[in-house]
Amino acid sequence: MSADTTLYSATFLIGFGDCDPAGIVYYPNYLRWFDSTYHGFMRSRGKTHQIFCNENGLIGTGLMDVGATFRSPGRDGDDLVISIVSAEWRDKSVRFNYRGTVGDRLLIEGYEVRGLFMRDGDRLRLAHTGPLKAYLEGDDGERPRT
Amino acid sequence: MSADTTLYSATFLIGFGDCDPAGIVYYPNYLRWFDSTYHGFMRSRGKTHQIFCNENGLIGTGLMDVGATFRSPGRDGDDLVISIVSAEWRDKSVRFNYRGTVGDRLLIEGYEVRGLFMRDGDRLRLAHTGPLKAYLEGDDGERPRT
Amino acid sequence: MSADTTLYSATFLIGFGDCDPAGIVYYPNYLRWFDSTYHGFMRSRGKTHQIFCNENGLIGTGLMDVGATFRSPGRDGDDLVISIVSAEWRDKSVRFNYRGTVGDRLLIEGYEVRGLFMRDGDRLRLAHTGPLKAYLEGDDGERPRT
Amino acid sequence: MSADTTLYSATFLIGFGDCDPAGIVYYPNYLRWFDSTYHGFMRSRGKTHQIFCNENGLIGTGLMDVGATFRSPGRDGDDLVISIVSAEWRDKSVRFNYRGTVGDRLLIEGYEVRGLFMRDGDRLRLAHTGPLKAYLEGDDGERPRT
Repeated sequence: MSADTTLYSATFLIGFGDCDPAGIVYYPNYLRWFDSTYHGFMRSRGKTHQIFCNENGLIGTGLMDVGATFRSPGRDGDDLVISIVSAEWRDKSVRFNYRGTVGDRLLIEGYEVRGLFMRDGDRLRLAHTGPLKAYLEGDDGERPRT
Repeated sequence: MSADTTLYSATFLIGFGDCDPAGIVYYPNYLRWFDSTYHGFMRSRGKTHQIFCNENGLIGTGLMDVGATFRSPGRDGDDLVISIVSAEWRDKSVRFNYRGTVGDRLLIEGYEVRGLFMRDGDRLRLAHTGPLKAYLEGDDGERPRT
Repeated sequence: MSADTTLYSATFLIGFGDCDPAGIVYYPNYLRWFDSTYHGFMRSRGKTHQIFCNENGLIGTGLMDVGATFRSPGRDGDDLVISIVSAEWRDKSVRFNYRGTVGDRLLIEGYEVRGLFMRDGDRLRLAHTGPLKAYLEGDDGERPRT
Repeated sequence: MSADTTLYSATFLIGFGDCDPAGIVYYPNYLRWFDSTYHGFMRSRGKTHQIFCNENGLIGTGLMDVGATFRSPGRDGDDLVISIVSAEWRDKSVRFNYRGTVGDRLLIEGYEVRGLFMRDGDRLRLAHTGPLKAYLEGDDGERPRT
């Protein structure tokens, strides 16, 4: 996959406290970094997740599905770059594909499937992903890059 | 301090993932367990924190101050008992004192100072602690014990 | 799936601090609870993960793959039961299947694929899963149940 | 306190998942950021915590005491700068003082007291802080700055 397809990247300095007694990253932290990268992507278009949700009558752009494959271990002192390498849009969900690297070394590949959740009485229902797609693709030509 | 002064206790099984590369608990986890014990204390009186706050016009019973002293290390497989051993009530804040033990061994002593936060226009202000004291002390004779 | 196939279950009281600004569980916490349940399963057979690894020349029983599907949201005050409902053994990996429920409500389904990692000079290599299978299946008739 | 006394600073982008249902930072995260800043300070002198400990026969530079006062709430999207503003050296412990700010706004003040722990048979004992002080103060003229 060529770097130029990357939609957004964020860097995380892996710390001592992110690692377990085997000296490698405690794996739920990778999911925190996926989520954090997604929220950074949101903000990079100019609004926090909260503001975007308020403007679109959503309670959140929550997780429906997540997965990850661990390729090599991360350790204290590694500079981990998490990239959103592609987005697959459907009517009621979007899949973001992630890669995490330290230099040339691949640590993790994974994905998040997210939906736009609205309140519907006591329940939640899924809204169309259109507004999120328009916002993240920045069809208004305003897309700030970080 | 005799055990009978304990206001509330919760048990946490220390796991592999709670420990750092030195094989001992990554210390911010103790604060998570303090906070979790406080919320368990709230619920033990019959309501979640959210319901209590909604009923009293609060946005939260948030932290003003926290401290802890580490006496001996916790490890994977330890059954940690966190106890709220006393509460010191003031008009606009309350200090909860915590002890964490594994069997007879003392791991941690600490405290949380909490305030009752209300919205006041764009700002937050502190409400009187009276409603929280009445709720936690269960002066209505309904105090469920766990 | 009938309850009697469950290999191990652990209960987690979902707390205020486990939830995000939308008031539902911040999803990486579910992976922490999967991992914690696995480590509880290990201990329920009589040894911590560390002792098992030391005895078998392993540096860890680490993650190769993880996935989860979110069925309904967890909230502050929910008693979440995470169950390991089955294990699929292969030569060099094992897949544990998880379900998380609050009462009758299904919150999450997921899996972890784990391998037994040994040092091999500067690298890691996968050991056979046989010792872990024998340990967890308790073929010695000593299997304690929790 | 003037900015020029700062020993080390690190920036953390506060994310959605770092916040609780009240929409403000879940407080144990601040302690994670203190710890992460300390480890960044270690690395900024050229070695990870692990390498420093290995070279000095230590199992870790662990926490003895921690405290924090919360001045104003952090929220999703805030760029939090955590600074180590001073270090107070004693024979067997060192206190690092922290400040966390978002722009001009003070969010948190706190401290960590750390000791250098060595194995002594089955027990831990405290080593002199001299090697850590020499390392962090970079008396060898090699001190890299970040």
